[in-house]
Amino acid sequence: MPRIVTMAAAQLGPIPRSETRAQVVERLLVLMRDAAARGADIIVYPEAALTAFFPHWWIEDEAELDSWFETAMPSNETAPLFAEAKRLKIGFHLGYCELAHEQGRKRRFNTAILVDKSGAIIGKYRKIHLPGHAGHEPWRPFQNLEKRYFEIGDLGWRAWRTMGGVMGLMICNDRRWPEAWRVLGLQGTEMVMLGYNTPQHDPAMPQTDPLQDFHNHLSMQAGCYANGTWAVCVAKAGVEEGIMQIGGSCIIAPSGQIVAQALGRGDELVMAACDLDACTPYKETMFNFARHRRPEHYGMIVERTGSLPPD
Amino acid sequence: MPRIVTMAAAQLGPIPRSETRAQVVERLLVLMRDAAARGADIIVYPEAALTAFFPHWWIEDEAELDSWFETAMPSNETAPLFAEAKRLKIGFHLGYCELAHEQGRKRRFNTAILVDKSGAIIGKYRKIHLPGHAGHEPWRPFQNLEKRYFEIGDLGWRAWRTMGGVMGLMICNDRRWPEAWRVLGLQGTEMVMLGYNTPQHDPAMPQTDPLQDFHNHLSMQAGCYANGTWAVCVAKAGVEEGIMQIGGSCIIAPSGQIVAQALGRGDELVMAACDLDACTPYKETMFNFARHRRPEHYGMIVERTGSLPPD
Repeated sequence: MPRIVTMAAAQLGPIPRSETRAQVVERLLVLMRDAAARGADIIVYPEAALTAFFPHWWIEDEAELDSWFETAMPSNETAPLFAEAKRLKIGFHLGYCELAHEQGRKRRFNTAILVDKSGAIIGKYRKIHLPGHAGHEPWRPFQNLEKRYFEIGDLGWRAWRTMGGVMGLMICNDRRWPEAWRVLGLQGTEMVMLGYNTPQHDPAMPQTDPLQDFHNHLSMQAGCYANGTWAVCVAKAGVEEGIMQIGGSCIIAPSGQIVAQALGRGDELVMAACDLDACTPYKETMFNFARHRRPEHYGMIVERTGSLPPD
Repeated sequence: MPRIVTMAAAQLGPIPRSETRAQVVERLLVLMRDAAARGADIIVYPEAALTAFFPHWWIEDEAELDSWFETAMPSNETAPLFAEAKRLKIGFHLGYCELAHEQGRKRRFNTAILVDKSGAIIGKYRKIHLPGHAGHEPWRPFQNLEKRYFEIGDLGWRAWRTMGGVMGLMICNDRRWPEAWRVLGLQGTEMVMLGYNTPQHDPAMPQTDPLQDFHNHLSMQAGCYANGTWAVCVAKAGVEEGIMQIGGSCIIAPSGQIVAQALGRGDELVMAACDLDACTPYKETMFNFARHRRPEHYGMIVERTGSLPPD
C-alpha cells in the first residue's frame, strides 16, 4: 500500500518592511485553508516567513534588531496558525527568526519548526550553514548579514518519525551543502522540508546571477537523488524592499525529478501527492548506504574545514 | 592571465569481447592524434578502456579472469600510447583493470592513471565505490560483479598539482557519491577526470532506465558546482556484447554547466578549452570552505555507514 503524504509548498511573495506579523499570518492562513481544502497533509512555508528578510540591512540598534525576532512560538501573533492547523488537521513547517534566552544570555537563530496535525511542535532546527558576512560591507548594494545576526545552529540536522514517514529539516544555504543532505539521509529521511530567501543578484559573484534558478534546483535535485528522499523547497520570492529574490519553489521526488513547481514570484501554492515508498528502491539499491558507503575514505570531510591543495 | 587547459573527452563505442588490446590501442591512438591536432593538453579515456566490461559476466576460471587484467603499465600492448603521448606532447587519463602482486598475494583493482606530457605516470587511483554484487545472481539479464572481481581501492581520492592546475581522479560509481567529490574538493581540485561504463538498464531498479542520462549528469554537475571544479566525464557507450551502455560523455564547468557533450554512442571526441581560474570565484565565495563549512556537524558521515532511522 503506498504511503502517500500530500505536500503543499506555500511560496510567499515579498513581505514589505511595513507589514505586521498579523498581516503576514493572514496571508499564511489563506494559503493554509487553500492547501487543506485541496487535501494537503502538510503545508511548507519559507525561511523567515513572518517578516521582511532583515539580514539584507545593517542594523546597529539592538532593540530594532530584536524586533525582527520571535521570543515565543507560538506567540500572540502566530497562535492563529496553530489553532487553524489543529482545526483543519493539517501539519505545517514554518521558518522564523528565534530569540532565545539560554545559557544566561540572549541567543539568536535562524530557525524552522515542524508542527503536526494536532498543532504540536514536533521538530525544531536551527540553521547551521549561515551564508554571507559579519561586518558592514558598504560596497554591496545590499548586505547579507546572517553571520552577524545569527549564531550557528546547535541542534544538528535531525529527522523525526511523524505523519507516516521520516521527515527532516534544513534551511536555505544548507541546501547547497551535500553534507547536510547526507546527515539527513543517514537518518533514513524520506521527506526534507526547507525554505529559502535567495536574491537574484549575488554581489560577490554577479556572473552567476543568470544561473540562480539552475543552481537552486541542481543542488536540491542532487540532494534528493543521492539520498533517495523527497523534498519540499519553498522560496520567499519577488521584489522585497528593492531586492529581487528568486522563486522556483518546488517539490522534488527521490529520483531527483521536479514534480511540481511555482512559476510566479508571489504567494502561490503548488502541491503533490508524495508516495514515501518511492524512496525505497533508491535506499535499497543504488544508495544502499550499508552496502556501498566507505567511511574509512571520508575522513577528510570532518578532519579538514578549508581546502588544502597539494604542494 | 587565464589558465587554459584544453581537455578532450574520448568516448569509446563498444569493445567486443574478441577485440585484442592491440586493436583497442589503435582506436585510442586515432583519438589521441585527433585530439593533439586540435590542441588538446589532455585526452581522457573511459573506465576499463582496454577491454569489454567483463564484470557483466560470471567468470569462474581464474586464468580467464586474469586475462582481463593488466599486470604492468605500460605493457607491451599499451606502450605505444605512452610513446605517442610523449611524441605529441599530450597528457592522458586511462582506466584499466589492474592485477598487482602486493602484500604477498594477487590483488585486483579497477584503476585509473594520469600521464603527463612526457609520458610519465604522475597519478594513480583505485576505485573505492564498487557497485553491484559479489555473488552470482542468475535472475539478472547480466551481472554487475565489481564487488567480486575488485578489491576496494586503497589509495584514497587524491589530487596532484600538474599541467598548470590541481587535478584529481575518480571512477564511474564514485561520481554518484558526494563524499568522493568533497574529498577532492578539499584538496583544491580544479579538474576531475572520470570514466564510466553504465548500462542503460538497471535490473535492480528498472524504473530508472529512462532516467540514466539525467542521473548521470545530475550527479556530476552537482559535484562540480558544490566544489567549484571542472570535470571531464567519459563513457564507454553503445551496445557491447548485447548490453546497451549510456553515452553522454561531457565536460562540465565549475558552474555545473555542461560545455561540451558527445551525442552518439560510438568513438567520439568532444573538447573544451577550460579556464582553471573559472574555479576561483566559487572556491572563494559561495564555496569558501574555510569560511562556511561546519565539520563539527558532519560527524555522522564518518561515524555511520548505513542509515539508522529514528525510533
